[in-house]
Amino acid sequence: MDNSQTVDVAILGTGPAGLQAAIHAARKKVSVVVLGKEAKSSLFHAHIENFCCMFDVAGDTMLENGRQQAANFGARFLDEDVLAIDPQENGYALKTETGTTFLATALIIATGTQRNRLGVPGEKTLLGKGVSYCVDCDGHFYKGETVAVVGNESAAVDGALTLTEIADKVHLICDKLEVSDHLRDKLDAGTVVVHQGAAVKAIEGENQVERLILASGESLPLTGVFIEQGAKGLLQLATNLGIMLDPEMRYIQTDKQQATNMAGIFAAGDICGPPWQMAKAVGEGCVAGVYAANHAKAKRAAA
Amino acid sequence: MDNSQTVDVAILGTGPAGLQAAIHAARKKVSVVVLGKEAKSSLFHAHIENFCCMFDVAGDTMLENGRQQAANFGARFLDEDVLAIDPQENGYALKTETGTTFLATALIIATGTQRNRLGVPGEKTLLGKGVSYCVDCDGHFYKGETVAVVGNESAAVDGALTLTEIADKVHLICDKLEVSDHLRDKLDAGTVVVHQGAAVKAIEGENQVERLILASGESLPLTGVFIEQGAKGLLQLATNLGIMLDPEMRYIQTDKQQATNMAGIFAAGDICGPPWQMAKAVGEGCVAGVYAANHAKAKRAAA
Ligand SMILES: Cc1cc2nc3c(=O)[nH]c(=O)nc-3n(C[C@H](O)[C@H](O)[C@H](O)COP(=O)(O)OP(=O)(O)OC[C@H]3O[C@@H](n4cnc5c(N)ncnc54)[C@H](O)[C@@H]3O)c2cc1C
Ligand SMILES: Cc1cc2nc3c(=O)[nH]c(=O)nc-3n(C[C@H](O)[C@H](O)[C@H](O)COP(=O)(O)OP(=O)(O)OC[C@H]3O[C@@H](n4cnc5c(N)ncnc54)[C@H](O)[C@@H]3O)c2cc1C
Repeated sequence: MDNSQTVDVAILGTGPAGLQAAIHAARKKVSVVVLGKEAKSSLFHAHIENFCCMFDVAGDTMLENGRQQAANFGARFLDEDVLAIDPQENGYALKTETGTTFLATALIIATGTQRNRLGVPGEKTLLGKGVSYCVDCDGHFYKGETVAVVGNESAAVDGALTLTEIADKVHLICDKLEVSDHLRDKLDAGTVVVHQGAAVKAIEGENQVERLILASGESLPLTGVFIEQGAKGLLQLATNLGIMLDPEMRYIQTDKQQATNMAGIFAAGDICGPPWQMAKAVGEGCVAGVYAANHAKAKRAAA
Repeated sequence: MDNSQTVDVAILGTGPAGLQAAIHAARKKVSVVVLGKEAKSSLFHAHIENFCCMFDVAGDTMLENGRQQAANFGARFLDEDVLAIDPQENGYALKTETGTTFLATALIIATGTQRNRLGVPGEKTLLGKGVSYCVDCDGHFYKGETVAVVGNESAAVDGALTLTEIADKVHLICDKLEVSDHLRDKLDAGTVVVHQGAAVKAIEGENQVERLILASGESLPLTGVFIEQGAKGLLQLATNLGIMLDPEMRYIQTDKQQATNMAGIFAAGDICGPPWQMAKAVGEGCVAGVYAANHAKAKRAAA
């Protein structure tokens, strides 16, 4: 049974960058799918008064308009996070949190930035000494050990499931899970110890992480803590693929066409670095949409 | 009598790129002046339906809104073209068509693109053989000769006046002059032969321009024709300064901060190359506004 669908351009992110990219790509008569959750956009709770040429607008209204605009030009929307991107012969395979696979000729990564820090004692001092923000980068260091993942969304659940294949024991510390039924089923069927309703109070250890203290006072002995707040973001998806980041490893590097170092992968918006502004997001989205569509068309013509 | 004013950031152009730059620079608490004519923006007569996140908007309304927005944040507007930019010790001196001079610490060039071609027989075949689009680039080749400038706006009048210092005789072919009184007075006081209400029918010559044929049938013997439609644009202002263009000399080259190769000079919008879209213009304007303001602040702190 093949659950995969092909598409010319897949866009990760439904913030202003992703929406503007969808508008420009769809108008070039390529098939476009947009993946991601509208309410997770940084814009959703914002009020904007510095975006030309509108005086004062509510972020959620803007997102709704942009989505409708892109849909009018033919873009499809799917309210799901992407969990994995795998290079294929003629593009990339995307796996979403419901298990759907898209085979896309061109990709636009417009997943925004995330404020990942927990802000608890020990988090900063033990960074790199057992505290990590990236399961896919650091998970393999924890063979046979006990670890915890902190977070409510797809990145945390997916990270915890991945870690069960490496570590001996995996805790998931979550306030309230916000994931698809598919992912929840996989979690229930696996060996992750889920601490629902729990919160982290501190991360402790001498020179290395030794334990996690929960708000309840409970202490979990372990050697690794993965902080995975928000959807699967920049670090994981990009690092896995080999997309070039800026020298300080915080943003995706792009050229003037918003192309990354990987053929057919473009990026736009906050994920490409500061200034983190709606105007910059739509500008880069427009450029990425145009060139991703061109890329897909050229590939199609060559096939 | 010193007719000059100092300003932190001067923006050339009141299209979406210039307006968004003005909004972002002014919000950083630097003094901002915006120069240029609203009705000359490419957006003025456009109807936009692909700009996130608004369904269908009239260009002139958008420009009016953006101008008001920028003014609310403290930007000043002056409806004048800039005719010259001269490097100074601590920035750049701008001369406008009324003779006002601004001393600016940082500049943002957001003058759009111009569709310069006349579309008459001979224009294409004699390009580089007497037909030119840039007085400042090619004027000096015409010492002691007879030349014509074609155009109605500041670039044409300024170009014709410049040529009177080089060529023996200068014709100005214009439909209807659209320039400041200051520039018109200079024209009246000079030696330019003004053909008001005239139009070009053809440019003729064997291997080199030999004559200009007007719609009236009149034939003007000459060796150079300068087509200077629109305001002073990319080629003149940038070439004079030494700003780096793209390899084909059509656009200003910028880095990710919209900085050009010249310290303190930024560029944004259509003048930086395709795609020629409002979304890209506001995106680049935002970035240019932020970094030009930062540049001016850093200079001020160092002074
Ligand atoms: C409180 C607040 C106020 C702000 N005020 C202003 C302001 O006044 N002016 C201004 O210009 N800017 C403002 N901003 C910034 C502005 O909101 C951002 O610059 C803009 O939203 C960035 O757009 P983006 O499309 O890059 O990312 P976002 O809008 O953050 O969108 C990211 C998208 O990616 C999706 N996503 C993430 N991971 C995945 C995944 N693995 N798979 C699929 N989808 C994924 C998310 O669901 C979301 O849809 C503000 C931000 C905040 C938080
Ligand atoms: C008919 C038409 C339809 C269009 N439709 C769309 C569309 O549907 N969607 C879309 O996204 N885009 C559209 N565009 C393109 C869009 O209008 C441009 O991309 C956008 O206006 C570029 O903005 P800008 O600020 O770079 O330049 P412009 O808006 O062109 O502004 C240039 C400014 O520079 C000023 N200037 C020039 N020379 C000087 C000087 N020497 N000194 C001072 N000021 C100077 C001018 O007076 C003007 O204010 C359309 C354009 C046209 C012509």
